[in-house]
Amino acid sequence: MRAACCVGPLRSRKGTSPLASVDLNSDLGEGYGAYACGDDAAILGIVTSANVACGLHAGDPEIMARTFTLAKERGVAVGAHPGFPDLWGFGRRPMPFTPPEIERLVAYQVGAAQALAAYAGHRITYVKAHGALANLAAEDRAVADAIAKAVRAVDRDLALLAIALTAQVAAGEACGLEVHQEIFADRGYTDAGLLIPRNQPGALITEADAAAERVLRMVEGGAILTASGKALPTPIRSICVHGDSAHAVATARAVRARLEGAGVTLAPFRS
Amino acid sequence: MRAACCVGPLRSRKGTSPLASVDLNSDLGEGYGAYACGDDAAILGIVTSANVACGLHAGDPEIMARTFTLAKERGVAVGAHPGFPDLWGFGRRPMPFTPPEIERLVAYQVGAAQALAAYAGHRITYVKAHGALANLAAEDRAVADAIAKAVRAVDRDLALLAIALTAQVAAGEACGLEVHQEIFADRGYTDAGLLIPRNQPGALITEADAAAERVLRMVEGGAILTASGKALPTPIRSICVHGDSAHAVATARAVRARLEGAGVTLAPFRS
Amino acid sequence: MRAACCVGPLRSRKGTSPLASVDLNSDLGEGYGAYACGDDAAILGIVTSANVACGLHAGDPEIMARTFTLAKERGVAVGAHPGFPDLWGFGRRPMPFTPPEIERLVAYQVGAAQALAAYAGHRITYVKAHGALANLAAEDRAVADAIAKAVRAVDRDLALLAIALTAQVAAGEACGLEVHQEIFADRGYTDAGLLIPRNQPGALITEADAAAERVLRMVEGGAILTASGKALPTPIRSICVHGDSAHAVATARAVRARLEGAGVTLAPFRS
Amino acid sequence: MRAACCVGPLRSRKGTSPLASVDLNSDLGEGYGAYACGDDAAILGIVTSANVACGLHAGDPEIMARTFTLAKERGVAVGAHPGFPDLWGFGRRPMPFTPPEIERLVAYQVGAAQALAAYAGHRITYVKAHGALANLAAEDRAVADAIAKAVRAVDRDLALLAIALTAQVAAGEACGLEVHQEIFADRGYTDAGLLIPRNQPGALITEADAAAERVLRMVEGGAILTASGKALPTPIRSICVHGDSAHAVATARAVRARLEGAGVTLAPFRS
Repeated sequence: MRAACCVGPLRSRKGTSPLASVDLNSDLGEGYGAYACGDDAAILGIVTSANVACGLHAGDPEIMARTFTLAKERGVAVGAHPGFPDLWGFGRRPMPFTPPEIERLVAYQVGAAQALAAYAGHRITYVKAHGALANLAAEDRAVADAIAKAVRAVDRDLALLAIALTAQVAAGEACGLEVHQEIFADRGYTDAGLLIPRNQPGALITEADAAAERVLRMVEGGAILTASGKALPTPIRSICVHGDSAHAVATARAVRARLEGAGVTLAPFRS
Repeated sequence: MRAACCVGPLRSRKGTSPLASVDLNSDLGEGYGAYACGDDAAILGIVTSANVACGLHAGDPEIMARTFTLAKERGVAVGAHPGFPDLWGFGRRPMPFTPPEIERLVAYQVGAAQALAAYAGHRITYVKAHGALANLAAEDRAVADAIAKAVRAVDRDLALLAIALTAQVAAGEACGLEVHQEIFADRGYTDAGLLIPRNQPGALITEADAAAERVLRMVEGGAILTASGKALPTPIRSICVHGDSAHAVATARAVRARLEGAGVTLAPFRS
Repeated sequence: MRAACCVGPLRSRKGTSPLASVDLNSDLGEGYGAYACGDDAAILGIVTSANVACGLHAGDPEIMARTFTLAKERGVAVGAHPGFPDLWGFGRRPMPFTPPEIERLVAYQVGAAQALAAYAGHRITYVKAHGALANLAAEDRAVADAIAKAVRAVDRDLALLAIALTAQVAAGEACGLEVHQEIFADRGYTDAGLLIPRNQPGALITEADAAAERVLRMVEGGAILTASGKALPTPIRSICVHGDSAHAVATARAVRARLEGAGVTLAPFRS
Repeated sequence: MRAACCVGPLRSRKGTSPLASVDLNSDLGEGYGAYACGDDAAILGIVTSANVACGLHAGDPEIMARTFTLAKERGVAVGAHPGFPDLWGFGRRPMPFTPPEIERLVAYQVGAAQALAAYAGHRITYVKAHGALANLAAEDRAVADAIAKAVRAVDRDLALLAIALTAQVAAGEACGLEVHQEIFADRGYTDAGLLIPRNQPGALITEADAAAERVLRMVEGGAILTASGKALPTPIRSICVHGDSAHAVATARAVRARLEGAGVTLAPFRS
């Protein structure tokens, strides 16, 4: 049986009961060789799920194994975080791969991550696309389908962590994958449920407490709150926080503290 | 239960019965992007096992998936063929990885190959190291141990295809892996069971029929025949042939024909 | 003083005199490490200019040096042939580089080629963009300007070899570079002077003699001949031939023979 | 005319006159894509020469151009800093390149750096090898010769910045290059003039003031001071400081302040 992706807001699952759990996820293991990226140790003390780069846009086998080992020690769930093969561009540049090519590209990375997780005594439970690949998959159903097909072909027990209300969700469900939807702790939303582009006002919520308060309201309300104040009902199962600056770590901490303070249990969306 | 690696020559397993099966393996999928390497289609009609490059010294996800698909269609078994991350050097340059680093390097590649094989509807059944990594593992037990440990950590059901009479064999067995030993169809052997270095006389058996005849005698005798005429008892389960030149393909064909003509069944060492 | 790019057809330069010279160019050194690509030795006996890959979409320092050395021995002029940093895609995938990023990308490759040419005792005299970078520069003036600016910044004595009648020509001239225009020996042209897309009829002229005859008429007429029979006046200074298949080499040979048979001198557009 | 490499200590060049100038150099531009490495802005305010990574072990065309531009603005001299093509290993792993291969590898990188320096309005005046390539060249004369030959082939006006008292010095001089010798601000020396291995006591001088004081004594004395107190006469023309940690920047600042406080002029070894 599939999961929360088809239910309404968290509260509705329990009637008047207190909130169920929500997941905090962050991208980890994004260094390469001698290059570090983000404060993985700090962020592993905050999140419940770690999206681990798979060696093509970031990460190398050493970093992957180390990240899986640390995540295991901290009880943090791990997912594969595949991206375009563009280390120079950190996977943030869209590359003209056809959907069938994306299938192979994703399968390769998921397999590599599974193997290194196994090596580290841990286990990949989900897949979340990275950067330009994720953005394309949010808007282009064919790309989203390609990712979902790859995941299913490699291991149909893997869940898909999808950007809420995007093509990723439908693609994953059409493939029969367990799909969980995430929101972003520090990004403003349009009334269409899209992220406000970074070059426009309201794109970033830079104040940690404001971000945390907003996240709590979204989780409690089971809805994405847009910049204009609208509520878009969304089965929020995970909140994406960043760890690549001191500021980002502070926001992640504030989000966690605010949610726990309100009685929301933080736990991986999948055990 | 472990397999043929501890028995004597094939003939001895059956007393006076006809010969059991032997495997023919070759490196495949060694192109990259627009670059082709070897005549994979021809060689897939000859061998029973294909060692598939995993993207770091050769191969890319497209080529890997295509190779697994073709191998599946032809009934050819597939193995992961990990190497050093050196596309420029085709994995033939030894790189100073420590044994623990080799563990992660190998695990990464085995996982990627498993995933793309699954994607193509096939299944990796073994691992064979490539190029400089294989050569180091033949002589350096710590390197051989690292490869074996990685394989076991990723999937203990995978077999190891080892260069006969080298450190690879003992390392694989010490790890509890099923180990199969291979000989080379076109290389001369020293009395120590080592390959004669390429710059010395007798290193290469260039005449296809001579190579085929010699292989048959080794398989029937259950022994490596050295350049001096000595027989080194070896549980030969596979014969490595090459497919990167017209000449190599001709030798592979001759070996197959000669073995079949003598009643030797050709089959993967593992179904 | 700048050259033929602003004059009319070759014949007109000399009144009734015999035809002046034209250049034959081809992409060379497009292998990588153990991978060969095309029959460089054969093609170096045919062309008068070699466009040498610079290590990011193809080529490595060994191949570059070897190609420059061979070209020097054969009296073949050499140019840098920069492309997108995408070895996997052989530079044929457009990548989202901004024009300023393209400037640096091209400068890097031109410098590397100059150094290895100097090392080999030869000298780069021109630059020609490769693959997707060339195609973008043919249509997008900002990309064409970026390439021209990079060339000028690195060495204003370098010429630009441009696809005839495209944005590359105007960009090079606006930068004050010497610009030479090339046509393709084996590609059909639309009435707009563009290449007929490969998936449409008439895109490829596969018959060597037909290609050679057509090239001669274009060179003699000083005009690109379109598929519909129209003549587009063009200062043709170079003809691009390919060397990546036996068929391509045959076409290159036929073009050279037909031109020489008609009294056209083949020589680099620049000494 | 060649320079200071053959004279004695600085003081001796001027009799009783005040000290001549000495250079402070540091590795810069060692990031890659989204990865930063070291505080280049801070270090550019301290050093007089910047060794700029050339894209194979670190650096990319964007970072290279930016570093050259900043160095030009700050009046800092720039050199090419070629290394092994091993981004994963940051050029710190020795790779089995033959000396002729090293020639091409170095030529490629020097040319790329020259072009991007020209693009940025600056000019490379020297070459200094990086990491494992530098270490090999310090001990193996054939490697040192290969580097020197490559530099001379590309541009014989380039100087070589060599690790003092090593094979690099003799190789550069034998090639007719201008050679300048450097010492390390924060590393202890054996009586043989070699760096004390990092795993032994005295390898690192971690205290900024102690490092600065020692550097001043070496510069004033025209000799490397060994851990045992011995003085090895050396024509010290440059001091290598690091910029990859707050601590390293502090040491660099202390060295500069101490030298200037003692009346030593800091200036590039070449204008």
